[in-house]
Amino acid sequence: MKSFVIREARKTDMPRVLELIRELAVFEKEPEAVEVTAAQLEADGYGPEKAFHCLVAEAEGTVAGMALVYPRYSTWKGVILHLEDLIVTENMRGHGLGAALLDEVVRYGAQLGVKRISWEVLDWNEHAIEFYKGKGARLLKDWDVIHLDEQGIQQYLKNI
Amino acid sequence: MKSFVIREARKTDMPRVLELIRELAVFEKEPEAVEVTAAQLEADGYGPEKAFHCLVAEAEGTVAGMALVYPRYSTWKGVILHLEDLIVTENMRGHGLGAALLDEVVRYGAQLGVKRISWEVLDWNEHAIEFYKGKGARLLKDWDVIHLDEQGIQQYLKNI
Repeated sequence: MKSFVIREARKTDMPRVLELIRELAVFEKEPEAVEVTAAQLEADGYGPEKAFHCLVAEAEGTVAGMALVYPRYSTWKGVILHLEDLIVTENMRGHGLGAALLDEVVRYGAQLGVKRISWEVLDWNEHAIEFYKGKGARLLKDWDVIHLDEQGIQQYLKNI
Repeated sequence: MKSFVIREARKTDMPRVLELIRELAVFEKEPEAVEVTAAQLEADGYGPEKAFHCLVAEAEGTVAGMALVYPRYSTWKGVILHLEDLIVTENMRGHGLGAALLDEVVRYGAQLGVKRISWEVLDWNEHAIEFYKGKGARLLKDWDVIHLDEQGIQQYLKNI
């Protein structure tokens, strides 16, 4: 096992965090979908209105994994925590970085006093699903995600 | 068709908004899952840190529908808008309140300049799915929702 530390991401980590985001997008078969830039991550995460909270796993002086979270609002439970991304770079998988990042996310949620931590997973990502189930998370098979994208928003507005 | 207006929800609407939330929870077969109170909605929506933005449809002096939204953060698109709930009370369906609420949500998202509006739908709610698809929204069948609930969080912390 390789040694690593989990720490809060700094603004200067954002270019490397973006590389991890792109790596995940390739794995999820949508590499062209990433429109965010490092400058945007820096502004959104470290400006006056923090849009997210980011943790990183650092191994051998390099950021090898990250977890990005932000609050959501459940009309059943109140403020909850949402885990948008949990990424470990391919050649560092299997060393416990993902589990350690998730541990820290759950601790963070507990500190905030939220009644739920939510995230989304691709239904063919069996390895991730088994990992999460083993941690006590519940898979909600009957909910589907809906997106109205930028083009859809513009088209929608033309029709009303 | 009955006449109605769409307007921003006021703090004093929250008890009625909670009734609508409970009505939806019954429809979704989880009536006992609603833990939020009207006082909590008032504090979370109208306090120093606004956790959500709420619109209501008012017909004949009564709040007959609501839409509740808040920002999320996509690591692909930046800040997006999430529609947590779109509810029209049962005896007022079929009069265009839901469509008018969604119109206003999309206008609000466009004002914010977001590149995506997202929401979730139960896969057996065919009427809602057809309605959303007709509006140009895309159903992502391959994403599943995961929840680690309050008990799961506590259990998780005991195991690390």
